[in-house]
Amino acid sequence: MAEDARAGHRFVTSGEMQVEELPWGPHEWLCRPGLTDARHLQLVRVRMPAGTGHAFHRHPSLEEVIYVVEGRAEQWVARQSRALGPGDIAHIPAGEVHATYNAGDTTLVFLAILSPAASEGPAVVDVSQEEPWASLRALPGGPR
Amino acid sequence: MAEDARAGHRFVTSGEMQVEELPWGPHEWLCRPGLTDARHLQLVRVRMPAGTGHAFHRHPSLEEVIYVVEGRAEQWVARQSRALGPGDIAHIPAGEVHATYNAGDTTLVFLAILSPAASEGPAVVDVSQEEPWASLRALPGGPR
Repeated sequence: MAEDARAGHRFVTSGEMQVEELPWGPHEWLCRPGLTDARHLQLVRVRMPAGTGHAFHRHPSLEEVIYVVEGRAEQWVARQSRALGPGDIAHIPAGEVHATYNAGDTTLVFLAILSPAASEGPAVVDVSQEEPWASLRALPGGPR
Repeated sequence: MAEDARAGHRFVTSGEMQVEELPWGPHEWLCRPGLTDARHLQLVRVRMPAGTGHAFHRHPSLEEVIYVVEGRAEQWVARQSRALGPGDIAHIPAGEVHATYNAGDTTLVFLAILSPAASEGPAVVDVSQEEPWASLRALPGGPR
């Protein structure tokens, strides 16, 4: 289906979502330009297998909310870590470094909500090999 | 707790959310100014009892995504209606009239995601008593 064939569409179900395979699990896109008329909102559901994670990164011009649907997350925002379960959220201001790891034995399912719908410059910058992020999880306050 | 006591907070769980009682069910606020440092994103989880709904309304300056968590929704966006189940979404551009009804026998749980985090003018305008909205659900294509 052409990228803009769905312009004007108001409903997205499992048959219409766009799936992107990434090393930390399939990303099921439910709202973004080309799929809806999104201008302010992007929504993607991530199914993160046990034992995997999305290491420290930042979105220079996108604000984000993580909403846990199923499973258990070890969620980092800057140097703070918190165990999140179903119904819990993390709020990540634009530019702030963050990471999400599956802290359980089952698939972690979460929503990543991003705004605005398009960003100038790179959407994601990986900082997982830079300090202090490279060694942060090995410190006290790291994985529980 | 003072409105701005949580400024700088990055995590919101069931113990920290702000609950607002409305005729179509409790609204569990998870992200908005005063609760997080939200600038672009608002997130509220609505628990809509069977037999209730949020009649036709619009948000003049807010874009919205509805994400169904549990139950069955009769979701309207302008003159289109669709039955939505868990994991399905509706996208509502700013200013577009929409409505959500619980179409099942159990509580409908959905997320309302709004952007930006603050709006100029009224956040919501009720149009449920105006035509064509007042009689739309009684027409063919109405509730199934």
